[in-house]
Amino acid sequence: MDSAIIELEMCHNELDKLNEKENEEVIAMDQKFRKLRQECYDKRSKIIEKIPDFWFTVFTGHPDLCNILTEEEEDCLHYLRKLEVDMADNNSGYSIKFYFKENPYFKNDLLVKEISYKQDKMASESTKIDWTKPQKKTATKTPGKKRVREEPKSFFGWFANNDDPANDKIAEIIKDDVWANTLQYYLPDPDMEGEDDSNESSDAEEGGDETNGDKTTQASGDGTSSN
Amino acid sequence: MDSAIIELEMCHNELDKLNEKENEEVIAMDQKFRKLRQECYDKRSKIIEKIPDFWFTVFTGHPDLCNILTEEEEDCLHYLRKLEVDMADNNSGYSIKFYFKENPYFKNDLLVKEISYKQDKMASESTKIDWTKPQKKTATKTPGKKRVREEPKSFFGWFANNDDPANDKIAEIIKDDVWANTLQYYLPDPDMEGEDDSNESSDAEEGGDETNGDKTTQASGDGTSSN
Repeated sequence: MDSAIIELEMCHNELDKLNEKENEEVIAMDQKFRKLRQECYDKRSKIIEKIPDFWFTVFTGHPDLCNILTEEEEDCLHYLRKLEVDMADNNSGYSIKFYFKENPYFKNDLLVKEISYKQDKMASESTKIDWTKPQKKTATKTPGKKRVREEPKSFFGWFANNDDPANDKIAEIIKDDVWANTLQYYLPDPDMEGEDDSNESSDAEEGGDETNGDKTTQASGDGTSSN
Repeated sequence: MDSAIIELEMCHNELDKLNEKENEEVIAMDQKFRKLRQECYDKRSKIIEKIPDFWFTVFTGHPDLCNILTEEEEDCLHYLRKLEVDMADNNSGYSIKFYFKENPYFKNDLLVKEISYKQDKMASESTKIDWTKPQKKTATKTPGKKRVREEPKSFFGWFANNDDPANDKIAEIIKDDVWANTLQYYLPDPDMEGEDDSNESSDAEEGGDETNGDKTTQASGDGTSSN
C-alpha cells in the first residue's frame, strides 16, 4: 500500500511542477507579445508624430471625446504631439500619457493619468497641471461629499478628476477605443464624402479596416485589454 | 501624407496579426498543458484503482462531503472505483464522472454530472440512475416553484438535482478540492494520530504536502480551474 501512496505523491509532485511550468510559460508568452506589440506602437507613434494635428483630429473627431472639449482645449490639442497607453504588468492597471509641445497653456510637457487596481479597488492619479495663467476653480474635489463621478464638463476637468476611477469612461474610451482604433478616428468619415462604398475611400469607414482584415477593431481591442 | 497613412495601416495590420498569433499560441499552450495534466491524472487514476476503498475513504473523510452521505450511500461508495473530473475546452464547463463496480444499488456503471456554461448561464445535467430497488421520491424537482438550490440532504439527492447549477457547492468542492487535493483527504489526519509534527506522518497533514512543495494546494487548484 505504501508504495502506491508514494506513487500518488509523485503524481501530485508532477502536477505541481506542470502547473508551475505553465504559469512560467504564460508569463513569458505575455511578456513576449507585450514587447512585440510595444515595438509596433512605438513605430506607430513615430509615424504619427510626423503627421500635423494627428491627435487633434482624432480627439475632435471622436464621437465621445469631442463632447467634453472646450474651445480652448481644442486649441490646446494642436500641441499634443504624442499619446501613449502603457499597460501595467499582470493586469494591474494602465497609464495614459499625453506629450505636449511647448504651448501657451501650461508648462508641463508630459501629463500622465495612471489608473491602477489595488487590492481589487481601482485608484487613479494624474499629473498636476502647471497652468501658465490662473485657472477658474473647477469643482473636481468635493471634500465631505460622496465621491461620485459626474459627466466631465471639460477635458482637463476629466484629467484632474480622480474621484471615481472605477467609472472613468473617458479613460476607458482612450485605452480601448482611441488607442486601438486610432486610424479609424483620424481618417475622414466616408459618409461625409458621399456614399460610394465601391471606391477606395471606403477604407476609412468603420468596416473600412477591411484592408487590415475583418477583425481589426476587435483584435486590437483584445490585444490591449488583455495585457 | 498618404504614405504616412499607409505606414499606419501597416502598423495596424501588424498589430492584428500579433493579436491573432497570440490567441493561437495561448490556445496551443493551454492544450499542451491540458494533455500533460491529463496524462498525470490518468496515471493517478490507475494507481488509485489498485487501492481498496480509496474514494470511499476520501469522500467519507472530507469535511463537507461526509455531511451529505447517508448510511446506505456510504456503503455504496465502497463500489466507487474511479472518479474523473474532465475540464471542457475554453472554460466552458466540466464533467464529474463516477465509475462504479457492479453493486446492489443501481445498474449504471457510470454516473456523470455535467456542468456547462451556456451563454453566460450555467446549466447542469446528470445521468438518470437506474436503481435496483424502487427509491423514495426525493423532491428534486419542484415544477412551478422557484428553482433555488437547498442544502443537499443526500449524495444522490445532490447528484440528481440540477435546479441551481450556479450554486452547486458540492460540484465545486469535488472539482476544486477533492480532485486537486485527493491525497490529502486519503491520508489519515495526523492530528488524530498525535501532534508530533517532526516525524514523517506530518506529510499527511494539510501543510503536509510540504514534500510536494509549498504550493501544492494552490497550484493544483489553479491548474484544474484554469482549464
